[in-house]
Amino acid sequence: MTDTPAAAPAGVDPVALTARLIQCPSVTPEDGGALTLLSDLLSEAGFECTHIERGGIANLFARWGEKGHARSFGFNGHTDVVPVGDAAAWTHAPFSGEVHEGELWGRGAQDMKSGVAAFAAAAVDFVRDTPPDGAVVLAITGDEEGDATDGTVALLDWMRENGETLSHCIVGEPTSPDSMGQMMKIGRRGSMTAWFTATGVQGHSAYPHRAKNPLPAMARLIDRLASATLDEGTDHFDASTLAVVQFDTGNTATNVIPAQCRAAVNIRFNDTHTGAELSQWLRREAQDVSRMFDITIDTEVKISGESFLTPPGELSDLIGKAVAAETGVTPDLSTTGGTSDARFVKDLCPVVEFGLVGNRMHQVDERVPVEQITQLKAIYARILRDYFA
Amino acid sequence: MTDTPAAAPAGVDPVALTARLIQCPSVTPEDGGALTLLSDLLSEAGFECTHIERGGIANLFARWGEKGHARSFGFNGHTDVVPVGDAAAWTHAPFSGEVHEGELWGRGAQDMKSGVAAFAAAAVDFVRDTPPDGAVVLAITGDEEGDATDGTVALLDWMRENGETLSHCIVGEPTSPDSMGQMMKIGRRGSMTAWFTATGVQGHSAYPHRAKNPLPAMARLIDRLASATLDEGTDHFDASTLAVVQFDTGNTATNVIPAQCRAAVNIRFNDTHTGAELSQWLRREAQDVSRMFDITIDTEVKISGESFLTPPGELSDLIGKAVAAETGVTPDLSTTGGTSDARFVKDLCPVVEFGLVGNRMHQVDERVPVEQITQLKAIYARILRDYFA
Ligand SMILES: [Zn+2]
Ligand SMILES: [Zn+2]
Repeated sequence: MTDTPAAAPAGVDPVALTARLIQCPSVTPEDGGALTLLSDLLSEAGFECTHIERGGIANLFARWGEKGHARSFGFNGHTDVVPVGDAAAWTHAPFSGEVHEGELWGRGAQDMKSGVAAFAAAAVDFVRDTPPDGAVVLAITGDEEGDATDGTVALLDWMRENGETLSHCIVGEPTSPDSMGQMMKIGRRGSMTAWFTATGVQGHSAYPHRAKNPLPAMARLIDRLASATLDEGTDHFDASTLAVVQFDTGNTATNVIPAQCRAAVNIRFNDTHTGAELSQWLRREAQDVSRMFDITIDTEVKISGESFLTPPGELSDLIGKAVAAETGVTPDLSTTGGTSDARFVKDLCPVVEFGLVGNRMHQVDERVPVEQITQLKAIYARILRDYFA
Repeated sequence: MTDTPAAAPAGVDPVALTARLIQCPSVTPEDGGALTLLSDLLSEAGFECTHIERGGIANLFARWGEKGHARSFGFNGHTDVVPVGDAAAWTHAPFSGEVHEGELWGRGAQDMKSGVAAFAAAAVDFVRDTPPDGAVVLAITGDEEGDATDGTVALLDWMRENGETLSHCIVGEPTSPDSMGQMMKIGRRGSMTAWFTATGVQGHSAYPHRAKNPLPAMARLIDRLASATLDEGTDHFDASTLAVVQFDTGNTATNVIPAQCRAAVNIRFNDTHTGAELSQWLRREAQDVSRMFDITIDTEVKISGESFLTPPGELSDLIGKAVAAETGVTPDLSTTGGTSDARFVKDLCPVVEFGLVGNRMHQVDERVPVEQITQLKAIYARILRDYFA
């Protein structure tokens, strides 16, 4: 909060727009009418809207202004939401979009229909009131909470094929842990999972020399991986981490040495690593142990996202100043948390994430103070004004 | 085989008796009439028979001669059998007891209705033809293939309470891997299983420092246990072995650090160890690792049987000479294999195991050459004669 509260919002009401978006039941991969609601609003305001469908997922690309302009400011967000869980456990129905005691309730209230509404509202007002020399782009996906293969990636593929570009981009995910304006994200750690399958020869536990037990080999491998220090962290990143998440055999007998076991590790890595380099390390470790124990170990790796960093500079300064002006708080430049679609956008242009407080996202009774939505619209509006000033 | 085959068997026909026993469907814990068949035969021959039931299990104690005599030769065996598995897969019905091309077919043909029949036949003939100065005892159980808690243990408890004794004992389990007379067992390794449960604190794999992952601790513990050398073996025993048999988490997510995991190891130990001492070692290792990783590790141990050794001497000599005389083969003195009821009998008197070839036990199409049953009766008969000579 600042000492002098902002005046009542002019133009598009971001709270009403968020409520209408919440009323669209858009649990991934369903769209529930959310993107049509947005394209109607944006088309009317002069945005060129393209619905891009891939793999049963609806996505929306909306541009105001000249295609390929050197100053093309982008916003990336999603209208899909995670499932509501136990609907009966909600105090107010999860797709009602009702306001109670200053809070707007519903799935997506924080993550991130409010963010999409705040930017859309700000953008529509901005191009109407002070048409910029440049372009304003919204790339909104319906596949962020799912596999994310047919969402922002599909939008970026389409943009590349169609000569669309961005000079800078904000991803509107909730970024503050507790209070408004606290944090922006200038990077994220990468994430990858490796599954190991160790295969030996089954046997009777009374005659271990006739069997080849994969369990000691897997235990050694897991011990080695869990004991490894990946790095000590960097200026902007915490140390990378490796978490052992699975180790299973499925053998209920105690007199049988099993032929196979599986284990999985999840790695969150900073910008001192790439997914490819870590995959190589994992495979090398598995091979070492495999040779030591004469046990076959297969390694399967899935890289969910590479790490990314947009070093502090023009974009983070722009956002930091706008946030400070509207909230009185100077946001920290953080790289914590899981992955977001910024991991895809970073290949196109500098990208920073800034949005609401995310303390209730993915939970039952997800809700957001309406004043935070208004405040977020004001921040996004100021960013647009300053960017094109 | 010896060069001069034994003459046709006199007295009780052990093949017919085995067939009749096979026709009793005595899958543990059922008796199927097997022990009554035996007690009828033995009673008629002057044995004092007592049916000892415990926990729904039928057992038979039969003694010819004076109770508590210093020369009381015992035979221990079982009439219960393991399930037949896929009955349709048998070439001849598993409880038919049919003879085809010189082989007697059926569940228990090797393990070990033939052994019981051979000794009962030999004993009945022996006490009739050459009544000894001493006692001949059969302790036959219906709970060897099950938990073994209400079988030989119940018989021994009853004997202790009733002033019954044995001076030496043969356990009639199949002991030869391939050919008749090849091997007797003068000892067996002990067997125990330990289950470890490691408990930490669940968390998100992106924030491992907020969780306490039990998996690396368990992997370290298992690696330590699997790498340990328990001993180098002894004159009569192979080295003790530890086999890791289970390691399970049951966590299907890759972004969740689980709160708990379990593992199990099975130890087969020789006479340089006791179950209690090994339990202490396992608990100490678990405690060490527990402290290192700040993870709770619970250890649960079940000792299935202590190791036992009847050092080569009077009993093994007696058996060895009888086997050599009847088969021309001098049996090896072995301590290999799983546990048997000899682990209980050894607390009462010197015990050695000798019986048939066990190559088809517990399998579909279990069967035995009829001449091996006749030969086994001849061996047991010679042992009785020599013992009381
Ligand atoms: Zn989100
Ligand atoms: Zn048996």
